[in-house]
Amino acid sequence: MKNIVGIIMGSDSDLPIMNDTVKILEEFGIANEVKVLSAHRAPDLVSEYAKSARNNGLKVIVAAAGGAAHLAGVTAAHTTLPVIGVPIKGNVEGLDALLATVQMPPGIPVATVAVNGAKNAGLLAIEILAVEDMELSKKLEEYKKSLQIQVEDKNKKLEELGVEKYLAEKMGK
Amino acid sequence: MKNIVGIIMGSDSDLPIMNDTVKILEEFGIANEVKVLSAHRAPDLVSEYAKSARNNGLKVIVAAAGGAAHLAGVTAAHTTLPVIGVPIKGNVEGLDALLATVQMPPGIPVATVAVNGAKNAGLLAIEILAVEDMELSKKLEEYKKSLQIQVEDKNKKLEELGVEKYLAEKMGK
Amino acid sequence: MKNIVGIIMGSDSDLPIMNDTVKILEEFGIANEVKVLSAHRAPDLVSEYAKSARNNGLKVIVAAAGGAAHLAGVTAAHTTLPVIGVPIKGNVEGLDALLATVQMPPGIPVATVAVNGAKNAGLLAIEILAVEDMELSKKLEEYKKSLQIQVEDKNKKLEELGVEKYLAEKMGK
Amino acid sequence: MKNIVGIIMGSDSDLPIMNDTVKILEEFGIANEVKVLSAHRAPDLVSEYAKSARNNGLKVIVAAAGGAAHLAGVTAAHTTLPVIGVPIKGNVEGLDALLATVQMPPGIPVATVAVNGAKNAGLLAIEILAVEDMELSKKLEEYKKSLQIQVEDKNKKLEELGVEKYLAEKMGK
Amino acid sequence: MKNIVGIIMGSDSDLPIMNDTVKILEEFGIANEVKVLSAHRAPDLVSEYAKSARNNGLKVIVAAAGGAAHLAGVTAAHTTLPVIGVPIKGNVEGLDALLATVQMPPGIPVATVAVNGAKNAGLLAIEILAVEDMELSKKLEEYKKSLQIQVEDKNKKLEELGVEKYLAEKMGK
Amino acid sequence: MKNIVGIIMGSDSDLPIMNDTVKILEEFGIANEVKVLSAHRAPDLVSEYAKSARNNGLKVIVAAAGGAAHLAGVTAAHTTLPVIGVPIKGNVEGLDALLATVQMPPGIPVATVAVNGAKNAGLLAIEILAVEDMELSKKLEEYKKSLQIQVEDKNKKLEELGVEKYLAEKMGK
Amino acid sequence: MKNIVGIIMGSDSDLPIMNDTVKILEEFGIANEVKVLSAHRAPDLVSEYAKSARNNGLKVIVAAAGGAAHLAGVTAAHTTLPVIGVPIKGNVEGLDALLATVQMPPGIPVATVAVNGAKNAGLLAIEILAVEDMELSKKLEEYKKSLQIQVEDKNKKLEELGVEKYLAEKMGK
Amino acid sequence: MKNIVGIIMGSDSDLPIMNDTVKILEEFGIANEVKVLSAHRAPDLVSEYAKSARNNGLKVIVAAAGGAAHLAGVTAAHTTLPVIGVPIKGNVEGLDALLATVQMPPGIPVATVAVNGAKNAGLLAIEILAVEDMELSKKLEEYKKSLQIQVEDKNKKLEELGVEKYLAEKMGK
Repeated sequence: MKNIVGIIMGSDSDLPIMNDTVKILEEFGIANEVKVLSAHRAPDLVSEYAKSARNNGLKVIVAAAGGAAHLAGVTAAHTTLPVIGVPIKGNVEGLDALLATVQMPPGIPVATVAVNGAKNAGLLAIEILAVEDMELSKKLEEYKKSLQIQVEDKNKKLEELGVEKYLAEKMGK
Repeated sequence: MKNIVGIIMGSDSDLPIMNDTVKILEEFGIANEVKVLSAHRAPDLVSEYAKSARNNGLKVIVAAAGGAAHLAGVTAAHTTLPVIGVPIKGNVEGLDALLATVQMPPGIPVATVAVNGAKNAGLLAIEILAVEDMELSKKLEEYKKSLQIQVEDKNKKLEELGVEKYLAEKMGK
Repeated sequence: MKNIVGIIMGSDSDLPIMNDTVKILEEFGIANEVKVLSAHRAPDLVSEYAKSARNNGLKVIVAAAGGAAHLAGVTAAHTTLPVIGVPIKGNVEGLDALLATVQMPPGIPVATVAVNGAKNAGLLAIEILAVEDMELSKKLEEYKKSLQIQVEDKNKKLEELGVEKYLAEKMGK
Repeated sequence: MKNIVGIIMGSDSDLPIMNDTVKILEEFGIANEVKVLSAHRAPDLVSEYAKSARNNGLKVIVAAAGGAAHLAGVTAAHTTLPVIGVPIKGNVEGLDALLATVQMPPGIPVATVAVNGAKNAGLLAIEILAVEDMELSKKLEEYKKSLQIQVEDKNKKLEELGVEKYLAEKMGK
Repeated sequence: MKNIVGIIMGSDSDLPIMNDTVKILEEFGIANEVKVLSAHRAPDLVSEYAKSARNNGLKVIVAAAGGAAHLAGVTAAHTTLPVIGVPIKGNVEGLDALLATVQMPPGIPVATVAVNGAKNAGLLAIEILAVEDMELSKKLEEYKKSLQIQVEDKNKKLEELGVEKYLAEKMGK
Repeated sequence: MKNIVGIIMGSDSDLPIMNDTVKILEEFGIANEVKVLSAHRAPDLVSEYAKSARNNGLKVIVAAAGGAAHLAGVTAAHTTLPVIGVPIKGNVEGLDALLATVQMPPGIPVATVAVNGAKNAGLLAIEILAVEDMELSKKLEEYKKSLQIQVEDKNKKLEELGVEKYLAEKMGK
Repeated sequence: MKNIVGIIMGSDSDLPIMNDTVKILEEFGIANEVKVLSAHRAPDLVSEYAKSARNNGLKVIVAAAGGAAHLAGVTAAHTTLPVIGVPIKGNVEGLDALLATVQMPPGIPVATVAVNGAKNAGLLAIEILAVEDMELSKKLEEYKKSLQIQVEDKNKKLEELGVEKYLAEKMGK
Repeated sequence: MKNIVGIIMGSDSDLPIMNDTVKILEEFGIANEVKVLSAHRAPDLVSEYAKSARNNGLKVIVAAAGGAAHLAGVTAAHTTLPVIGVPIKGNVEGLDALLATVQMPPGIPVATVAVNGAKNAGLLAIEILAVEDMELSKKLEEYKKSLQIQVEDKNKKLEELGVEKYLAEKMGK
């Protein structure tokens, strides 16, 4: 199965967070590849990767970086595939990475998700792929329903146990 | 031609900015519709719109709002279509709208662009539509090239005129 | 006894904080109910809850959420009961939740308290209920006096012990 | 008719903004009084006003201030009536007034609305008064409906005119 | 010996930090008193304290508080003695306390020091007292010289040991 | 009459703001001197000025600067006189000047007032001088009373005219 | 004369600000070239420019950009010449451009100057060139002295005219 | 070998961070010296150091400080050598030190690197020295290549091991 989502990150220290992107993609059966590709330490690798992405069969790229996060923006500069940016929290509460990822100039968009929002980056990639994929779109609907069911289940349990016991059980975990 | 991009905004005061989304979509020949739909003043209209969006043929939704910007997030809560959020600048330099749009919880992504980034919201929608549309994808490549050509043209002119004359001409406009 | 304050929160991870709202309400003998109700994962439950709140006998709703905190605003969009918003601290020091809760547009107010201000959310609910309830109003006056007495007691102790012993005792706890 | 909402502000330069509180209260027929009462320049007037507020028949107090905004907090320290705080924008984008109003310590809540959120302060006061006032509560429901109808009317017009003409007409005003 | 510096704080949880003010004052032989006096929980005690401060012999007041820090401002509203404000770090990195302490309106100054700047609050009080006190002024000059000597001593040691050994010794402590 | 307050500023572009310090000092009859003294462009002049200040009869120094505001801190490094810092608003809303002025390390305090708080810098200087000056202290008490009277006068007028006429008159000015 | 400083900027709208870099370089007789080179719209031009810079005789590069400012960082990724970054003010007070320029990861430094600090970017380039250029180093010393002399001249004038006349003359300009 | 880079810092508590500057300089064989030199506690030592730096053979100065970080700016005021500023993280996430270091007025640049960016300060110094040093310039090129090779090696390993095993091994360390 050909990889259709590329997940790149500025450093392997981002991998524990970005693993959530991998996991949600696998839950939906989306073939993906993971690369450590710094826009600063390996800029030519990044531009090569971005330029050849569409021809290599990729349909969406997820790019994660912290600090003066340039990876998503530089990738977007070299491809017309949708690029999803994940700001990674480091200093100044991740505000640097958020602003450096989201405040792109007209012409070159980056679809930015929350600070450390790796899971949502994966879900956004799936939503994009589902635009023309009926089956995937149905899986997303089911996933969405499961989120509501989880909420309902928690409420039932909360009603049964009351706040104190619920908290005790939660904390006991 | 059926509308495939829905552009919604919290107030018609956002329209002068969001018109840039309309214009870039039209430049690429993408049929779209524009609605004023406040998550706070007309929440049921928003949930109806979002829930029926896919069945109505929409493929991407662009949602713009300022302040405690909830429109994109609420829309995303009711659909599995990709939702692009545009934070509109009001008080506190648009930081409120940016954070209220981008910091979504796991499960419900919003693809956030820059503060007042209406043009990029349109381009991101086009990139998403182009994932499975060869023709659109080619148009995007040409658009990208045209951006670089504009930069080259400016540099040629700058070289010919020198900084002072270039500035004088620019300011004279 | 009918519940007259509804306490809702975006995730059960907010419960350890929001338990302070429950505790202060119980101290004042106010019947209340607690629900986990995400504006993003279970939006229809939220709108149902908010729309039927007044008919169900609720008089005030306390809504707590973190990140792009939409719960209080979405609840306020569906009811004319007073809605008290509690921004929950997560990333960016809770500034995202604070701005997403407080910066509501004209027409739909949310009575926002401090980041993690669960106890004050309860007290504000009590103050609202006390507007037309003489007895409750008296309890509030006594509570307020008790706050001053606690301050006076600490000062007496501080005077007796001196700073060093006071600190030693405090730290020893 | 006895005044039941007190509107106080730190300076008469806040009056052009706070007039929106007066106007919405009058729209709902709520008798109110307006005072310029600085917590810094006239602290004793503030504490007198706050201490006697309930006996003078007030049911809610709206307090507006900018900068190191202490007015709402100081008022709340001296009364058990609900106090609504309006942060007024001055330097640092109103962030100083917002934080100085909302970040109250446990025991003394202030119901904070948006920066310059004068209209919502009035509406929140009305919601509080409507908790035990059936008639007022109905007026609020009608007001809420009127907000949605305004949104619908704008959408009809937008559909009829199209974006360009709508914008032209809007700008022409 | 009469107390001439009053040190007040919003909560006894501020005492571990504010103890640095006590210690530096004692190092300079300045008689002082310490009180826990919340502007929110015990407002009348604060205004009494501030109003009678000059008559009670106080010459400077140091006021420390966190969050929506009103203590210094409220104290300054009730006295013409110099009031030194110490913002205490809590949520949002102490930025709330800093802005709530320093952004005072024209007419009522607060001499604000750094977040958690308890030692400097004491030194500033001493500098104020030293304006008309030759002896105290000399002690301050000596203190200032001692600061420079400490710097010189560290440099000598650094030169002798080299960076690695210096660090090892420092860390070993 | 010997100058006892020195007012220094980083640039003569700060003079229109700092003139408020001069005016309030003159209102209280305090002899003062004004200098343009950049910590960056004329550092030796600053250290000379600060080192000789006490011997030249100065009792308090007010130092104003914007951006990476070093003037107050550098002055404080060279004198044991109380130094009052005025952060001047430039870029980033004056937050740079505020933090660069107030966040001094232990040992070297700067008494910081609000962004552009020139008037309060003067009043704080007067309060410091009044610590040992009975007459000045009385003038301050009268000034404080006058502030309250101004508030009372505005309220009387507001009561007489009502909000609308008051606003009309205010705006008419 | 060969160009030894390259000045590049993300958009020709930055040119009015960056002209200050050109002017100060010309004042010191440093040959320079100016290019509009967007890291997002013309990424290959940027990498070519940066990679060939040293061979083309450049010794320092000044790179200016606003928003998610990537130009300086991307340039630094492709050269080992010193790169000076100038954050250009746009939205959020230039904080986005500042953080996106300065928060570079270990391995790839950017020498960042103030928001809109075009003149200082030029002076920093000159200081770098002067490290091994005695003559240039002397010119810098003279420039530095001239700054102090300007300060002294302003003070003389201020002393002669007094504050009011000085201000009147300044404003009259 | 004569020291050509001076590394100064406001406190020896900055030494564990600034040791990274020493290490990278030593890796490149650049002779350097380290001093603890507070702009506030030892201002005369700082100005002496800065004034004599060029004559003592220094070519670049690295200055690190936290809070109201004045050390780099004050050093720059006294020398025409390039001064590299390292903001040290303390309170408010290092934003105070960053703004106090970078926002220098026209005339006196400081080359600012990231918060705690000690390694990059060293690399920037090396880049400056390499402008006229062919051999050093080659070493920098090799260093840059090694950064890319590290990235490639990590990717190879990631490809071999897969995400899970890579993470396990990384965490196991």
